[in-house]
Amino acid sequence: MDTWLPSLITATPQEGFELAITLSRRGVKYTQPDTEVLHKLRPEYANSAEGLTAASQVIAINFQTVAAANNYWRK
Amino acid sequence: MDTWLPSLITATPQEGFELAITLSRRGVKYTQPDTEVLHKLRPEYANSAEGLTAASQVIAINFQTVAAANNYWRK
Amino acid sequence: MDTWLPSLITATPQEGFELAITLSRRGVKYTQPDTEVLHKLRPEYANSAEGLTAASQVIAINFQTVAAANNYWRK
Amino acid sequence: MDTWLPSLITATPQEGFELAITLSRRGVKYTQPDTEVLHKLRPEYANSAEGLTAASQVIAINFQTVAAANNYWRK
Amino acid sequence: MDTWLPSLITATPQEGFELAITLSRRGVKYTQPDTEVLHKLRPEYANSAEGLTAASQVIAINFQTVAAANNYWRK
Amino acid sequence: MDTWLPSLITATPQEGFELAITLSRRGVKYTQPDTEVLHKLRPEYANSAEGLTAASQVIAINFQTVAAANNYWRK
Repeated sequence: MDTWLPSLITATPQEGFELAITLSRRGVKYTQPDTEVLHKLRPEYANSAEGLTAASQVIAINFQTVAAANNYWRK
Repeated sequence: MDTWLPSLITATPQEGFELAITLSRRGVKYTQPDTEVLHKLRPEYANSAEGLTAASQVIAINFQTVAAANNYWRK
Repeated sequence: MDTWLPSLITATPQEGFELAITLSRRGVKYTQPDTEVLHKLRPEYANSAEGLTAASQVIAINFQTVAAANNYWRK
Repeated sequence: MDTWLPSLITATPQEGFELAITLSRRGVKYTQPDTEVLHKLRPEYANSAEGLTAASQVIAINFQTVAAANNYWRK
Repeated sequence: MDTWLPSLITATPQEGFELAITLSRRGVKYTQPDTEVLHKLRPEYANSAEGLTAASQVIAINFQTVAAANNYWRK
Repeated sequence: MDTWLPSLITATPQEGFELAITLSRRGVKYTQPDTEVLHKLRPEYANSAEGLTAASQVIAINFQTVAAANNYWRK
């Protein structure tokens, strides 16, 4: 696999949050690498309140990691 | 995307809790950017005990991050 | 909104646990501010084993934050 | 309410684990104080694989807090 | 109850992971001490993708605790 | 069982993420060692949005542990 995660350090909290989203998607993609299947499943969670809350929870967990890595972008 | 997360630092714990809510909603919005769809899904979780508990859990996880970033507003 | 979270510091672990309950409920209330709806949903989780376990989990996550803020009330 | 949580400090990891169980049960009890209802719900989770795994998860989260409070009972 | 958790310290990360499994199972067993019931429930989660993922999640949470206790077995 | 986890230290964040995936799969495998059963269950979660999100969540929790062990690969 190509290099997609060279570092956990980001310039801003917002970029850190977006990295957390990348980590969450990669967790899915390592489990189901077939992009066609992933594409078909998209409406199943993106149009479901439960699916979206669950997605937001995984992002929140990954954001904890990225934020700690960046010392919470404190000065 | 515009800048919506310039910092994790807040003046008070309560503002930190409200930032945790923002983070939770942004996690949803990055996954489903269509605000019309989000609007339609609202009753699905806001009128469901399970959906509300799940929402509160995501907020709790994000609040851990914000609280740590602010050294728990000690002193 | 009025001030409901001036501090995460409490005198005892038990008060800290009760603050964690407050945080968990506020997470719900920010998502669904209509107290009438909340009242109607109460039996849905308070009379369900799954709902009660989920509620206890959110409290546990918030208690991690409050306990860390208080240095675990050591000494 | 009476004092049920004077401290997070325990003599051994095992007592810490048992305190984590107490915290998990108290999280349920604060949400549903009616012991008769709780008694009736018991078979619903104690005889369900999903319910038992969920209970074990809440205990695990509370054990993280108790273990940190006790510096993991290192020497 | 007999002593089953004298320490969180293990010689290797792998033994730490196995201790996390023990903690996860004990969380179940404290909630449902009847081994016959537990035996009957086994196929319910061990033959279900959802049940196995949930079990792996509880192990992951307990492994966080054990790993921190052992300073991540660094050097 | 053979040695599969000699260390939590990895050279890069990406290898750390892949170790988190290994930990997540091992958590499943310790619970259900029969590889034939595991093989049959695969479509159940790999073709389900809910199952994939749950898998990504377990990976995120294990990645927190691996990232902390590696001091977030800072420097």
